[in-house]
Amino acid sequence: MTTGRQQWDGLATGMALATLDAASGYGAIADAALGWRDGRLTYVGPRAGLPGDPATLAREVLAFDGGWITPGLVDCHTHVVFAGDRAGEFEQRLQGADYAAIARAGGGILSTVRAVRAASEDALLAQSLPRAHALLRDGVTTLEIKSGYGLDYDNERKLLRVARRIGTELGIEVRATFLGAHALPPEYAGDGDGYIAAVLDWLPRLHAEGLVDAVDAFCEGIGFSPAQTRRVFEAARALGLPVKLHADQLSDLGGAALVAEFGGLSADHIEHTSDAGVRALAAAGTVAVLLPGAFHVLRETTLPPLQQLRAHGVPMAVATDCNPGTSPLLSLRQAMQLACTHFRLTPEEALRGATLHGARALGCDDRGVLRAGLRADFVHWRIGQPAELGYWLGGELAAAVFAGGRRVA
Amino acid sequence: MTTGRQQWDGLATGMALATLDAASGYGAIADAALGWRDGRLTYVGPRAGLPGDPATLAREVLAFDGGWITPGLVDCHTHVVFAGDRAGEFEQRLQGADYAAIARAGGGILSTVRAVRAASEDALLAQSLPRAHALLRDGVTTLEIKSGYGLDYDNERKLLRVARRIGTELGIEVRATFLGAHALPPEYAGDGDGYIAAVLDWLPRLHAEGLVDAVDAFCEGIGFSPAQTRRVFEAARALGLPVKLHADQLSDLGGAALVAEFGGLSADHIEHTSDAGVRALAAAGTVAVLLPGAFHVLRETTLPPLQQLRAHGVPMAVATDCNPGTSPLLSLRQAMQLACTHFRLTPEEALRGATLHGARALGCDDRGVLRAGLRADFVHWRIGQPAELGYWLGGELAAAVFAGGRRVA
Ligand SMILES: [Zn+2]
Ligand SMILES: [Zn+2]
Repeated sequence: MTTGRQQWDGLATGMALATLDAASGYGAIADAALGWRDGRLTYVGPRAGLPGDPATLAREVLAFDGGWITPGLVDCHTHVVFAGDRAGEFEQRLQGADYAAIARAGGGILSTVRAVRAASEDALLAQSLPRAHALLRDGVTTLEIKSGYGLDYDNERKLLRVARRIGTELGIEVRATFLGAHALPPEYAGDGDGYIAAVLDWLPRLHAEGLVDAVDAFCEGIGFSPAQTRRVFEAARALGLPVKLHADQLSDLGGAALVAEFGGLSADHIEHTSDAGVRALAAAGTVAVLLPGAFHVLRETTLPPLQQLRAHGVPMAVATDCNPGTSPLLSLRQAMQLACTHFRLTPEEALRGATLHGARALGCDDRGVLRAGLRADFVHWRIGQPAELGYWLGGELAAAVFAGGRRVA
Repeated sequence: MTTGRQQWDGLATGMALATLDAASGYGAIADAALGWRDGRLTYVGPRAGLPGDPATLAREVLAFDGGWITPGLVDCHTHVVFAGDRAGEFEQRLQGADYAAIARAGGGILSTVRAVRAASEDALLAQSLPRAHALLRDGVTTLEIKSGYGLDYDNERKLLRVARRIGTELGIEVRATFLGAHALPPEYAGDGDGYIAAVLDWLPRLHAEGLVDAVDAFCEGIGFSPAQTRRVFEAARALGLPVKLHADQLSDLGGAALVAEFGGLSADHIEHTSDAGVRALAAAGTVAVLLPGAFHVLRETTLPPLQQLRAHGVPMAVATDCNPGTSPLLSLRQAMQLACTHFRLTPEEALRGATLHGARALGCDDRGVLRAGLRADFVHWRIGQPAELGYWLGGELAAAVFAGGRRVA
């Protein structure tokens, strides 16, 4: 018998579980049950193992008719807060315009910066919230959001504030990443070092406001140099903030090794990372974040070093990289499909990448698998087997999404 | 003034229109209005041109706050009615299994045939309806559905009956295509000609029941020969039924020219169609149906002859090819994105392909553009410009879907 005091808040039955709580395989449990209380999982196992009658165990019992529950998805790399619209550039490129012509016409990332600077905080929230909701609606219960389209103190702050507000609005956890070192704003043209000095001035002030969970940079020939990136990372370390990096996407500047040297959370993109870079990630325990959306839209042909990552046991996360220029993805499940198709990840690798390894890339060790004691973040899917999550393009597969034990979609 | 008798059933205002009712461009109308009555459009134009006060013109006025209305999407090539599940094969391939091993293990198209044969008509409907609903939910108001997984009279009939029932259930128009010549069933192994004779026996009986709107075949080295396809087409012609063809997907057997010779509605796939084949399509007025989902999932590298199709003025449709083996697409918008990314279609070409040219590929001249007098099939999208329909992967862009003047999603 349970008393009211002991009762769980909720109990789901009638579905299977993909707990992912095993070194390999889905950790599948057929005819399972899942219980939760106070935002944490209280029971993960076979229905037959429940310690009593469902109706007495929980205040609410969800008796599903099939389907699967997985951990809530974790999208560990997004630029989902932005203003303006760059579908027109996508169209111009397909009509034959080259990047230089688009840039001359005022396009590219700086057009997003202009739109962000011109938008009020409320307008920026109103434009960004439907995108974040689309991600949630397709299973995302933990969402990383980067700044990097403001490129001055007030506008970077505005982006980070909107990121926080999205978490509150949607009832999911948002991890805010300061990406001041994303691009060089026009007012610092030709003075990358001067801009980095400004970024280093803003960082502690934004952090003091509680707006920064991690620090990122774009280390690339068209971004910031390894030396400039190092300055950003040293400032983050001085504040006790974890770092991550847009690394080796278009060329090998040693970005993966650099972020590993700082014990970073993740090295992201990494299409051009060398074997030495992979070894450095493995030694540091840094996650490799695969971003197949940008690979798809940019029609890249150089694959991330998948076999080396596997051989060295580097955890591979999968994320949307949702952004208006190179990765217009509003579904982490679609990123999983692209990872399976373009990168030949197995559906199981893609699912681990979008749950457990995505959580690890955010430094969250309380989610990403279904296990009693961890956060009650989970999704009930209308599927017959977990592989379907990496298989379908489109469709309404997420039947119900729970974050911290509360239904959010 | 209008009387009750003259009143429209509905009137939408506050959005822009992409009418597509122009030789090129979107046929855009800003600050537009759209009226309909008895399932047909009564007004397509600027709001300022309405012949009276909106409230007196229509029984229901939808005052949208922005967004765009396009013609309802037309998915002119699907195999959406099937039973069973082949995500496991997708997974096995990514785990390293080759096609032969999967076939030996009972996989491939014949596993779908077994599942279809084992399913009752109601079970087949129950499994297929959510897929068709997902297509509808993302904007499809006219849906072609092929048989071809039964491969005997009773089961081909069951597939076609379910196709018809889906139209009734969802309130959209379904065009049913008889694809008996899809694959050779085990009971005819080694006797393709004998199987074609059986197909020719079934066709008039199925047609007499009102179950067949068009006839299709899979003309390929691993399917049926041009001579066998010709026999099917001659039988269709004798019944006055239009034909279409899975043509030149994996090799050039002259399929495009064959279907053009019969004045066919469409040649579908056509990755390997020759210049002569393209000329034949142009001369016959046959539509080229592009199926980028299969191209994507199979990681094909040979593109359809896009420049020749454009040069010869062959209309290009875009469809999902929704099927469990090679194109797990539950969204025609995602097929449009893949057509833009893989085939470099412009978003405008993709949208025409998924509306006007899709309609033409089904022989429907009463839809596919927004024009007074045509069917009131339209979608209200949460977008700022039409190019977004070929740009985003995922997301909930369709705010409302109307078919024949009735809201269906
Ligand atoms: Zn990024
Ligand atoms: Zn097909």
